[in-house]
Amino acid sequence: MRGTAVLSTGCRPATSSGVNPGKPPTRVLRLVLEYDGTDFSGWQVQLGKRTVQGEVARAVQRVTGERVVVHGASRTDAGVHAEGQVAHLRTRTRIGCDRLVHALNAHLPPDVVVLRIDEVPEGFHAQYHATGKTYRYRLLERPVRSALRRNRAYLVRTPLDLERMRASAARLTGLRDFRAFCTEARTRGRTERRIDRLDVRREGDEMVIEVSGSGFLYNMVRTIVGTLIWAGIGKLSPDDVSAILESKDRRRAGPVVPPQGLTLVEVRYGDGPGPASP
Amino acid sequence: MRGTAVLSTGCRPATSSGVNPGKPPTRVLRLVLEYDGTDFSGWQVQLGKRTVQGEVARAVQRVTGERVVVHGASRTDAGVHAEGQVAHLRTRTRIGCDRLVHALNAHLPPDVVVLRIDEVPEGFHAQYHATGKTYRYRLLERPVRSALRRNRAYLVRTPLDLERMRASAARLTGLRDFRAFCTEARTRGRTERRIDRLDVRREGDEMVIEVSGSGFLYNMVRTIVGTLIWAGIGKLSPDDVSAILESKDRRRAGPVVPPQGLTLVEVRYGDGPGPASP
Repeated sequence: MRGTAVLSTGCRPATSSGVNPGKPPTRVLRLVLEYDGTDFSGWQVQLGKRTVQGEVARAVQRVTGERVVVHGASRTDAGVHAEGQVAHLRTRTRIGCDRLVHALNAHLPPDVVVLRIDEVPEGFHAQYHATGKTYRYRLLERPVRSALRRNRAYLVRTPLDLERMRASAARLTGLRDFRAFCTEARTRGRTERRIDRLDVRREGDEMVIEVSGSGFLYNMVRTIVGTLIWAGIGKLSPDDVSAILESKDRRRAGPVVPPQGLTLVEVRYGDGPGPASP
Repeated sequence: MRGTAVLSTGCRPATSSGVNPGKPPTRVLRLVLEYDGTDFSGWQVQLGKRTVQGEVARAVQRVTGERVVVHGASRTDAGVHAEGQVAHLRTRTRIGCDRLVHALNAHLPPDVVVLRIDEVPEGFHAQYHATGKTYRYRLLERPVRSALRRNRAYLVRTPLDLERMRASAARLTGLRDFRAFCTEARTRGRTERRIDRLDVRREGDEMVIEVSGSGFLYNMVRTIVGTLIWAGIGKLSPDDVSAILESKDRRRAGPVVPPQGLTLVEVRYGDGPGPASP
C-alpha cells in the first residue's frame, strides 16, 4: 500500500454547489482494497460467480443505494490475492471518505476489505491511469506440502538455485517485448512492457519473487515465475531465458504457475499528463 | 520445527523378530504435524466434530487398517494453528517412516499435514515427556481489519506501546505461579510453570509475541497476551502485571484473546530420565 496516494485531493465531503440543485454532484472515489482470492472467482463480475468486483458493488449499493460500476486496476484471476488493488467508482453520496471506509467494510465479507478511500479528480481511471504495478509470488521450497500456507504459496519440492534464478531474472528487466511470456488468447495489441525490478530472495523456506513494472500482459507474471523455476532447477540458463525472450515464442517459456502464490501488492499512479493528474 | 529430533532412534522399518511369530511387533511413532486450525474444532476428538486428532487417526486407518489413538502433546483449541504439534501412536505397520509420511499426507485433508515421523522407544509419550513448548501470537496493529490475515492474527486498533509490553513481559518470566493467568474450570493441580522466554517484537504492521516454557495452563498463553495488550494500551504498568501474578486472582488479569492469532510453534523433548530417553 505504498505510493498510492499520489493523486489524492484529500478526503473532503462533497459540496452541494453543483449545477443540479437538490441533486448532489458526482464524486469520483479511488479505493484501495485487500482481498484473499481463495474463495473468489477472481476480480471481474461473472454471472452466478462470487467476485471481488461484485462484492464491492453490492456493499456500495447497501450503503448508498446506488448501482455503481467498480473499475479495478487489475483483473486478478481466481485464487490471486491483493494487498493493494486499486479501483474507482462514481457516486453521488455525500458520506465522507473515512466514514465510507468503515460503512463499506461493515457490509463486505471477511475476505475483502477497503483499506482507504480518496476523492480523485473527474476523469480518473484506476486501470488506464496506472503507471506501475507490483506483484509478489511465493514459492514454498520444501519436501512436504504446507497446511498453513496452502492458499498462499506454490510448493516446489526440487531445491532451487537462487543465484541462477537471479541471473535469469536480470535478463528480463528493462523495456522488452514479452510476447513469449503471455497467454495469447487474451492478449491484444502491443506486447512491449517495462520491468523496473525483478527481485528473487529467500525468506525462511520460501523463495519470494517480486516484480514491478509499467504493466503486465495476461499471465505474464505467472509465466515469468514458471520460467524462473525452470532456471532454478537447472533446466534453463540465463542465456536460454534471453533466447526465449528474443524468440517471442510462448511455447519455449516455462509453465504458468498456479494462482495461489500470487499477490497484487500495489498499483502506482504517476504525475504525468492526463485528466487523472491533480 | 526446531529441536524435535532429540529422541529419534532413526527411521528403521520394524523387524519381525518379536515374540509373536507372524504378527509384526508394535512400534511407537512420533509425528510432527502442521495444521490450519480455522476449520477444526480443535485437536481433540469430539463426537460429530471435525478435529485434527480425528483426521490423523482416520488417515492412519486408511493406510494401515489399524484403529489407533493419536496422543497429542498439546490439546490446541478450535481456531489455533500448529507448525510443530507433536503426537505419538502405536502401530504394527512395517511401512518405513519416510514412506508413511507421504502415505498419510495423501489421505489427510489440505489443512493438516505430517511433516516428519520418527520411531521412538517404547514408553514415549508426546504429552507427558514434553519438556518445553513454544507458542506464537500475532496481533495486527492497524485501523482496518485484514482480509488476508483474518484467520492468522487478532486486530488491535489502538496503538500499542512496545517498550511497555516488553517491560511487562519481563515480569512474567522465570518459575512462577500462573494461577491468575489460567481458566480455572479446566485447570487442575499445581499452577507453577516456568517461562524461559517471552519476546515481544514488531514485524511490519504486526506485533508478534513468542513464548517458550516448560508447559502452559489452560488459556495461559492467550491470557498473557490479553494482559500484555492491556499493558500496551496503557491500562496496566509492569508493576501492575507483577501484582496480578502475585494476587493469583484470575479476575485481575487481561482477557483471553481469540484463538486465530495463536500458533503452536514447537514441542521440545529433553534428555532427562524416563522411558522416553534413548
